[in-house]
Amino acid sequence: MKVVIIGANGEVGKAVAKELGQRHEIVSVGSSSGQYQADITDIAQVRELFDKIGKVDAVVVTAGALHFGPLSEMTPEQFHIGLNSKLMGQVNVALVAQEYLNDGGSITLTSGIVGENPIRNGANASAVNAAVDGFARGAAIELKRGLRINSISPTLLTESQPKYGPYFYGFETVPAARVALAYSRSVEGAETGKTYRIW
Amino acid sequence: MKVVIIGANGEVGKAVAKELGQRHEIVSVGSSSGQYQADITDIAQVRELFDKIGKVDAVVVTAGALHFGPLSEMTPEQFHIGLNSKLMGQVNVALVAQEYLNDGGSITLTSGIVGENPIRNGANASAVNAAVDGFARGAAIELKRGLRINSISPTLLTESQPKYGPYFYGFETVPAARVALAYSRSVEGAETGKTYRIW
Repeated sequence: MKVVIIGANGEVGKAVAKELGQRHEIVSVGSSSGQYQADITDIAQVRELFDKIGKVDAVVVTAGALHFGPLSEMTPEQFHIGLNSKLMGQVNVALVAQEYLNDGGSITLTSGIVGENPIRNGANASAVNAAVDGFARGAAIELKRGLRINSISPTLLTESQPKYGPYFYGFETVPAARVALAYSRSVEGAETGKTYRIW
Repeated sequence: MKVVIIGANGEVGKAVAKELGQRHEIVSVGSSSGQYQADITDIAQVRELFDKIGKVDAVVVTAGALHFGPLSEMTPEQFHIGLNSKLMGQVNVALVAQEYLNDGGSITLTSGIVGENPIRNGANASAVNAAVDGFARGAAIELKRGLRINSISPTLLTESQPKYGPYFYGFETVPAARVALAYSRSVEGAETGKTYRIW
C-alpha cells in the first residue's frame, strides 16, 4: 500500500511511519518537514498536496494544534485554534482524500483522550477531540467505493510526558509505538466509523 | 430562578419556556424575536445581551444551525456553518455566561442524536453535536462558584418530522414537551458535565 502520513515528524507520526513502513510505502508530509509540505488548515494546499502525490491507499493524519488554557479566560480566538487546526485540518484532509484514495482505501484521523476524559485547561481539546470522533462516525456511513474512516484517541504519550505531564497527573501514559498499532489496525484492518481508544 | 432561553422561539425553546415558565422567570432571546435579540455567533453581541439582562440563575441555549449535505460534495465553508453557529454560538454563550451567572447557576446547551448515531448528509452534525457534548464535559470541571454545564441531545422532534423526517427514517421521534423535561433536569437538578440523551 501507498500510505500518506500527514504529521509524519511528530511523535505519533514517526511511530506510525516506523510501524507501517515495515510493510508499505510511506509518503511523509509535514508543515515544514517530510517529502511534501502542506498547511492542512488550507484546503487549497491539501488539494495541491494530493495533486502532487496522486492516488494512494491510505491517509493518516497525526497533526493538529489545540489551545490549552483556563476556561475562565478563554476567548473565541483561542477556541478557534483547535477548530481551525486539529478539527478543520483533519476534515479538510478527509474531504479531499475521498477523491484521491483507491477503492477500499482508508482515512485515519487523530483525536485524544481529553474528548472523553476532561482535564483542567482542556475545554478546547474536549470539544475538538470529540468532534473528530464524531466526524469519523458521521463520514464513515457516506464514504463510497469501500472507503473507510476511523479515529485514534490516544492518552498522553510516554514520550510527551516531560512536556505535557503536568496537565495529566494520574493518567497512565502509553508509548508511541503502542499507539502506532491502532493506526495499523485502522489502515490494515477492515473497520470503519470506529474510534480506537488507546488508554 | 431567572432563566435565559436563547432560541426561545424554536420548537425546543418554546417547550422549555413552557416547562420552566411554570416555576421560574423566563427571559426569552432570539435572533429576531423574544424580549432580547442577539446573534450568538458574535461574542460581542453575547456580552451586550448579558450586560442588558444582568445576573441570572440559568442559561439555556436551544439555537444553532448545521449544514446537511452529502460528504462527497461538502466544502469547508459548509462545514463552518455548524462550527460557527451551533458550536461557537453555544461556546460563546457559555464563555460569557460564566461571568453573569449567580453562584450555583447552570448552563444548558443543545447537541443532538446525530453526534452519536449518524445519518446520511449528517457529517457536519455528527462533528458539531459531538463537540458540544465534549465541550460540556470539558467545561464542567473548570467552572467556578458551583456553576454547572450540561448538554441535551434530543432525537428528531415529533414536531419537526414534517420538515426533517426524510433524513431520519426509522428513528423514533419525541415530542418537544418530553425533550423539555431534560432541560428541567439540567436546570433544576444538580448534575454537571452530563449529556442527557433523549431518544
